Amino acid sequence: MKSILIIGCGLLGSSLLRRIHKKKLAKKIFIYEKSKSNISKIIKLKLPGTVVKTLKEGATNSDLIILCTPMSEYKKIIIKLNNFNLPKKLITDIGSSKIESSKIIKKFLRKNLSWIQSHPIAGSEVSGPEHGKEDMFVNRWCILIKDKNTKKNELNILNRFWKKIGSKVVFMESEKHDKIFSITSHLPHLIAYNLVKSAQDFEKKQNYDLIKFSAGGLRDFSRIAASNEIMWRDIFFNNKNNISKAIDLFVKNLNSFKKDINSKNNKSILRKLVQTKKVRSKIIKLKQDIDKPDFGRN
Amino acid sequence: MKSILIIGCGLLGSSLLRRIHKKKLAKKIFIYEKSKSNISKIIKLKLPGTVVKTLKEGATNSDLIILCTPMSEYKKIIIKLNNFNLPKKLITDIGSSKIESSKIIKKFLRKNLSWIQSHPIAGSEVSGPEHGKEDMFVNRWCILIKDKNTKKNELNILNRFWKKIGSKVVFMESEKHDKIFSITSHLPHLIAYNLVKSAQDFEKKQNYDLIKFSAGGLRDFSRIAASNEIMWRDIFFNNKNNISKAIDLFVKNLNSFKKDINSKNNKSILRKLVQTKKVRSKIIKLKQDIDKPDFGRN
Repeated sequence: MKSILIIGCGLLGSSLLRRIHKKKLAKKIFIYEKSKSNISKIIKLKLPGTVVKTLKEGATNSDLIILCTPMSEYKKIIIKLNNFNLPKKLITDIGSSKIESSKIIKKFLRKNLSWIQSHPIAGSEVSGPEHGKEDMFVNRWCILIKDKNTKKNELNILNRFWKKIGSKVVFMESEKHDKIFSITSHLPHLIAYNLVKSAQDFEKKQNYDLIKFSAGGLRDFSRIAASNEIMWRDIFFNNKNNISKAIDLFVKNLNSFKKDINSKNNKSILRKLVQTKKVRSKIIKLKQDIDKPDFGRN
Repeated sequence: MKSILIIGCGLLGSSLLRRIHKKKLAKKIFIYEKSKSNISKIIKLKLPGTVVKTLKEGATNSDLIILCTPMSEYKKIIIKLNNFNLPKKLITDIGSSKIESSKIIKKFLRKNLSWIQSHPIAGSEVSGPEHGKEDMFVNRWCILIKDKNTKKNELNILNRFWKKIGSKVVFMESEKHDKIFSITSHLPHLIAYNLVKSAQDFEKKQNYDLIKFSAGGLRDFSRIAASNEIMWRDIFFNNKNNISKAIDLFVKNLNSFKKDINSKNNKSILRKLVQTKKVRSKIIKLKQDIDKPDFGRN
């Protein structure tokens, strides 16, 4: 790759920037960032790459364009890119849901620009370039969306790119992607936000100071519920059909638990509680989490 | 304290054992443990204290008796203790819900035996004496149940005991305790079990291999859903009225989120997502969790 433009240099954009620089994956790296506060941080942190003043400057000079902005920004960026009358370019993004953005890409992007969507499974509850990490994507899954119109040679370019980053690449259709992540990521985040919201409501109503007793479980959820609100609003809105179905399944199961509890149905509840334990061992075996009690924290 | 009997030497019992020994809080420590496998582990680990063959031997020779068993064992143990015709003793437990066990204590325990309930806010998803830690309760809250019949001098003895263990002691009525922990601990555990159950159901139905993509959120919940099933069945059953109400509040809020998502109500969802973030900062400020992204794991 001769040159790469990163649009949006927050937690994930700056992690990618650090990694591309370290692995020497491009001769030039350009950064386009709207937030003045983030630009100050990038300069203060002495991050590699060149901050460009206009999107046009970065886009014109880059072979690969990577969007690391909230998904609600895509349409605006596409319209700008179209207007630049660029030669053939490869574009990707790192958004967490895919069906809605693929519709926008299909509808608005000029035909000589190619966009293949990526989704690296990495992140954290903190935001901003100061929290980025060079090894953010190493040994993490990266889903590349392969639909019926995906061009093989462009998919290969992206595949090689993410492998050089250090990720494990999987190809998937956008429908399957959005279904899987509605369960493994979007619902868990919604549930975490909802649990913390319920605790706040309860605290207000009862006038109890309960957050200080959060070490028995609530604190784990509060970490996830501290994630970036713009990013998560976009994900919830963009994958609303799958998330809606996931909520229904969740509520159905919760009512079944409630029934077991209210009727003290020993056999039924123990079957459930034992069954769910197996998932943890599987996750650890698959190296998707560390093998230490309490995440090794102390 | 001359001598202490620990009944049930799993994760928490063995942590207490290690701490009592280290801090020299008793001249003699007795352990009564039903599980042969746990007894083998205690011997192999060379834990301090004397494993007694009968409950009677341990109870007769101890000033303080601490139950670290599942709460469903309390009634059987009380009936045995009654039959030993012991002189005046102080008893406590470390169970996670209090109203139901206080009813059993009131109904069954002989009048010359005193029982003041404790609840140290500590634990982990792993079980067994091999996972116990000497500092498990250090700087953790310990709730002592103070109801209208609690004797002040006995409460003082327990207060001093837990402070020597290293815990921060709070007095609370059982009603308030069970309400608070239904929200900060019992509901989060139920939600975690339920989320993992829903993921399993979805995986089975769709025939997708989704657990390997759990790093986006699900893995955090799977840790909590790996907790001991007997302990949690007992908690859910013993605190069923409060948990039932907590489920209703949770489902009400979840339906409100669902409505926001389906109608893409930007203002309403952002208000919720921003509001819940504040709880995380509060939890960290109160030193109820570590101040590192992703719990510092990697």
